[in-house]
Amino acid sequence: MNKGELLYEGKAKRLYTSDKKEELIAEFKDDLTAFNAQKKSQEVGKGGLNCLISTHLFGLLEKAGIKTHLIEKIDETHQRVKRVEIIPIEVIVRNIATGSLSRRLGIQDGLVLPFTLVEFCYKSDELDDPIICDQHGLIMKLATQNEMDTLKALAREINEVLRPFFAQRRLNLVDFKVEFGRGENGEILLADEISPDSCRFWDMDSGEKLDKDRFRQDLGGVKVAYEEVLKRIEGAIL
Amino acid sequence: MNKGELLYEGKAKRLYTSDKKEELIAEFKDDLTAFNAQKKSQEVGKGGLNCLISTHLFGLLEKAGIKTHLIEKIDETHQRVKRVEIIPIEVIVRNIATGSLSRRLGIQDGLVLPFTLVEFCYKSDELDDPIICDQHGLIMKLATQNEMDTLKALAREINEVLRPFFAQRRLNLVDFKVEFGRGENGEILLADEISPDSCRFWDMDSGEKLDKDRFRQDLGGVKVAYEEVLKRIEGAIL
Repeated sequence: MNKGELLYEGKAKRLYTSDKKEELIAEFKDDLTAFNAQKKSQEVGKGGLNCLISTHLFGLLEKAGIKTHLIEKIDETHQRVKRVEIIPIEVIVRNIATGSLSRRLGIQDGLVLPFTLVEFCYKSDELDDPIICDQHGLIMKLATQNEMDTLKALAREINEVLRPFFAQRRLNLVDFKVEFGRGENGEILLADEISPDSCRFWDMDSGEKLDKDRFRQDLGGVKVAYEEVLKRIEGAIL
Repeated sequence: MNKGELLYEGKAKRLYTSDKKEELIAEFKDDLTAFNAQKKSQEVGKGGLNCLISTHLFGLLEKAGIKTHLIEKIDETHQRVKRVEIIPIEVIVRNIATGSLSRRLGIQDGLVLPFTLVEFCYKSDELDDPIICDQHGLIMKLATQNEMDTLKALAREINEVLRPFFAQRRLNLVDFKVEFGRGENGEILLADEISPDSCRFWDMDSGEKLDKDRFRQDLGGVKVAYEEVLKRIEGAIL
């Protein structure tokens, strides 16, 4: 696959140059981190599971008309992706209150929100990804107002595709985080990944958590949960 | 003045019933608190200074067409005010980056912002007044979208009155916090106070801080600073 120079190493992925200037190679790592990497571990096979899950979901979104950075899956843990300039805003989409939303604002854990909430966080490990509103994004020149409006609209569109997709598979899509990048001509593309590392999935029947909260909350069975998510994505609709 | 029953005690004021159902009596306390009351002190005369300063500034705003809860100053530390239902949103207006904005987002302390930033915080001592965006306000039913739009517009209008007023007195209005309430028929009225407890004032010539940061940062001379602000408000325009 002609993996070139390491361009960037994040908590869950590495990005390498490829033989084409406008394309990169993304490698999914087995590393698990939580609470801004204060808690760390490894789970052999996690990278491969997320690479496969994210490839499936990006494909699903492409079919629904949402443009992504994904070109193709190369092997178990690698994807070929379009080179984009990542917009340093984590876009968080919430259908049910839990985690930092509940802690920060005292909203009851598990409350189904009256409408889908889209939050922005400034992507900065140093500052612990602080929540921002549009005006902060403008002041910090993270994105234009047009771009932020696009991020919000795309995040809602993604939710409109994924939420029913998972509901048909008896998984509640509680919340998820997405990142976007600027591709050629400034076109906004979905980037990064969508996986149990970046989503919360609750089993609609048992209430069981099938995502990174198993690691965050020391519930055990991380890999089994990720495998279950993959099985449901790949399986026939119930 | 027929001060009745104590209705509410906050960090800097007490609210009492009066002889009229639709009017309350506000008493300005000498207590100084910072960092969500983790740091506490008293400054004899501070309540009186803030009562006078806030009365002056509310009068100035009323003249500019901004409706407030203030009816009249009764004595050194008391005001007669309209009874309102306080909207639990602290509206923060920032002309220059400092304090929590700089800490939270890594924006250089002292940077003049490219435009006036209006932030909302959920008024909750328990949660340490977390920052919110409009959608959080809607989910938590703190206010309607119309009301939040009104709060932002009023906050900007107040800034447009106060910033030049203080600039003429060689004080830089760095930032300030205001609170609003719903009066009769749901009309939005400026409530609470505007004083060196709730504003940051930097001397335009010396850069000296003439506000509660003198207490927060142990700079000393709190009362002298508040007296200086009063003097400049009452003095002839330079």
